[in-house]
Amino acid sequence: MKDHNADPVTDLVTGLVAALPEGRVLTDPDVTESYARDRTFVPPGKALGVVLAQSRDDVVATLRWASEHRVPVVPRGAGSGLAGGATAVDGCVILSLARMTRIRELSPADEIAVVEPGVITADLDRAAREHGLMYAPDPSSYEISTIGGNLATNAGGLRCVKYGVTRDSTLGLEVVLADGRVLDTGRRTVKGVTGYDLTGLFVGSEGTLGVITAATLRLRRAPVQVATVAAEFTSLRDAASAVSAIIAAGCRPSMLELMDRTTLEAIDAWKNIGLEPATRAMLIAQAEGSPDEMAALCDSASFVAEASTPEEAAELVGVRRLAYEAKERLGQCLVEDVCVPRSRLPEMISAVEEAAKRHGVTIATVAHAGDGNLHPVFIFDRGLAEPPPEVWAAADEIFRGALDLGGTLTGEHGVGLIKRRWLGLEIGPVAAELHLGIKQVFDPLNILNPGKAI
Amino acid sequence: MKDHNADPVTDLVTGLVAALPEGRVLTDPDVTESYARDRTFVPPGKALGVVLAQSRDDVVATLRWASEHRVPVVPRGAGSGLAGGATAVDGCVILSLARMTRIRELSPADEIAVVEPGVITADLDRAAREHGLMYAPDPSSYEISTIGGNLATNAGGLRCVKYGVTRDSTLGLEVVLADGRVLDTGRRTVKGVTGYDLTGLFVGSEGTLGVITAATLRLRRAPVQVATVAAEFTSLRDAASAVSAIIAAGCRPSMLELMDRTTLEAIDAWKNIGLEPATRAMLIAQAEGSPDEMAALCDSASFVAEASTPEEAAELVGVRRLAYEAKERLGQCLVEDVCVPRSRLPEMISAVEEAAKRHGVTIATVAHAGDGNLHPVFIFDRGLAEPPPEVWAAADEIFRGALDLGGTLTGEHGVGLIKRRWLGLEIGPVAAELHLGIKQVFDPLNILNPGKAI
Repeated sequence: MKDHNADPVTDLVTGLVAALPEGRVLTDPDVTESYARDRTFVPPGKALGVVLAQSRDDVVATLRWASEHRVPVVPRGAGSGLAGGATAVDGCVILSLARMTRIRELSPADEIAVVEPGVITADLDRAAREHGLMYAPDPSSYEISTIGGNLATNAGGLRCVKYGVTRDSTLGLEVVLADGRVLDTGRRTVKGVTGYDLTGLFVGSEGTLGVITAATLRLRRAPVQVATVAAEFTSLRDAASAVSAIIAAGCRPSMLELMDRTTLEAIDAWKNIGLEPATRAMLIAQAEGSPDEMAALCDSASFVAEASTPEEAAELVGVRRLAYEAKERLGQCLVEDVCVPRSRLPEMISAVEEAAKRHGVTIATVAHAGDGNLHPVFIFDRGLAEPPPEVWAAADEIFRGALDLGGTLTGEHGVGLIKRRWLGLEIGPVAAELHLGIKQVFDPLNILNPGKAI
Repeated sequence: MKDHNADPVTDLVTGLVAALPEGRVLTDPDVTESYARDRTFVPPGKALGVVLAQSRDDVVATLRWASEHRVPVVPRGAGSGLAGGATAVDGCVILSLARMTRIRELSPADEIAVVEPGVITADLDRAAREHGLMYAPDPSSYEISTIGGNLATNAGGLRCVKYGVTRDSTLGLEVVLADGRVLDTGRRTVKGVTGYDLTGLFVGSEGTLGVITAATLRLRRAPVQVATVAAEFTSLRDAASAVSAIIAAGCRPSMLELMDRTTLEAIDAWKNIGLEPATRAMLIAQAEGSPDEMAALCDSASFVAEASTPEEAAELVGVRRLAYEAKERLGQCLVEDVCVPRSRLPEMISAVEEAAKRHGVTIATVAHAGDGNLHPVFIFDRGLAEPPPEVWAAADEIFRGALDLGGTLTGEHGVGLIKRRWLGLEIGPVAAELHLGIKQVFDPLNILNPGKAI
């Protein structure tokens, strides 16, 4: 206690500092501000401070303190989220898990890894590959995103057309509950039905039910052969139809990515990829393992480029991974994430194009096309504090269009803050009530990432 | 109202009959008794009657009535369960979903089916195969089990070593809640993170959270090439080690089943399969798609028989599917279902053999070996009302052994009634409390399959 006349807020933070090992709490307003945002435009609230957790015990101490004082806690990983899930709320403590970077175990025999939430996704993949294995979920941001953030949003990625999303690779979790109690869910086996599926419930819950401090993740055998091809199309709809043809031909690609002209122009402007004037869309596809699958992939579309070396393949895929950064160079971005049954992909593409035209907004679309998952990225003026009304009007039309086609508001980014106003449209009032009931069971004081996701 | 002097129970049932279309409610005690059991020895309670639901509306009417009168409801499919999950409790109404057998939709383009809970698992698989697709989960009982029962227990099966369990094939559900409200969960897309994973929560909840009246299920492309091989071993442990070698060699089998000598003798006594005196164990394995995988499979063990026609393959797999019926011919069976990380399979096999020897009980083991999922089947005298103490003593040792090896009490059958006394050992007190909280949210009156699963 340095100052007996300190205000209540200072007293509060002093208590937090005292509850944790030295150096864990940052309170400098400029520093706090730098932890208060994810990758969206959403203006953050003012946080009391940042906890840089280095262990489960740090998380326990933080949540005990937060429960005692009813302080909101906003967990975060790398801040690469695209829905405002890690945006600070007023009076909160930001709980960063980014320093919990230990891979506690990697068992090639059981094909599992036990990792802390701050492990970078691509680092886990690289560690697995040393044993001929891989960690399948690979969001575009996987070189910067953390496993904890991936778990919070049930992240997908480029390979999930074949290997599924983060939940499909999650066998068990260590979670600190809102009151500081520690819970172990799930197991080290790929099968198991003892009790309710708490593991699945935490994955994708965007930090609203507990703070994940370790995860037992499933690894998979890394493919030995991969064919990578790229095809250019003179219309976006043709490219979407090629996707349907590839799937209908019985091919099971491990990657099937689509980019529209606006996206390609943004990449070309940045990296000079030699974009042809007639090219309106590009598909980048990979197939692995079976030569039959690769043949089916190549026969189904008029591909113009097949990578003949791993370096060429990496370059083709690299073009796709540049898409988001390239678009950020054009202005502020609102990245959307609708997903439709894959047979409806051409219709959804048309709906996006029509919405852009009708509302006079710039939309650059990439899609994990094999999953029917589109990312229409709205690009707007960097000077604006938030997306202008015409962007929201077009987004609204796209969200409703996706739901009409039997799809969802968000395939892999989460609801966060920016999609909450459409949530009820998708889940309906009965589910909404059950969500609040579940939240109440896990977090009765509503301190965990309040106002997000549900 | 036939009788104004009827007792309160008769009045109650009269109200149920009136709430439903004609012919839906059976009250004859002999008939009710025949619906009161699953495939376990567990003695059932006395039910008020049986509802044979033919539609979602029947389920809604039944649950509204049950909520109003606080009558327990025990949902059931085919009654092929092995944990007492569908066993009647005193004063309950048994709600049979077996007549809801419609496949509402089968979309080859989206590779999904929307089905009612009474559809027989193998019937859905056959319907999918007409389009070059398959429904992957295939519990041994799949010719008699229903999709609803599979969902309730998160059933596995022989193919799940490659394709995962029922939850992995479930995209969305239509559920009637305890109070009769209808909830739609999930989606028609393979990705989606809007809201909490209610779909995953219902799957495996053994009828304690709601009654599933339809499911949107994922279909998969049926393999075009399948290699089927069988190998005999002179010790069970050698067979278990061969399993580890197959996996370590990078093979991804689509089936990897192990049977011990006692099981093989039971099958031989029934079907005369020409069992050699020296054979102590048999592995039956399949690999599909890639010739590399098939070669890896065959190189890793000294297989003695490779099927050269689909008929021969069906015969080899058929031997495995006979295992349970063959054992039932020897006496009453208590079927256990432990699952361990697959590297621990040889240790678990030894633990089972030791428990059998120490307690002087007969255990015949089959295993979904690629998943580390063992079914030690305790065979005891048909004259006994329930398993004798030495069987429970051996079972207790096996359960604790599985947990010590990082495994689980139940890989795919569920907790039901018979494993509840060990549940706390696996999930611990914090999870147990959360389970009760979730149950309270979905079923505040505790009328849905009370006393089961949690």
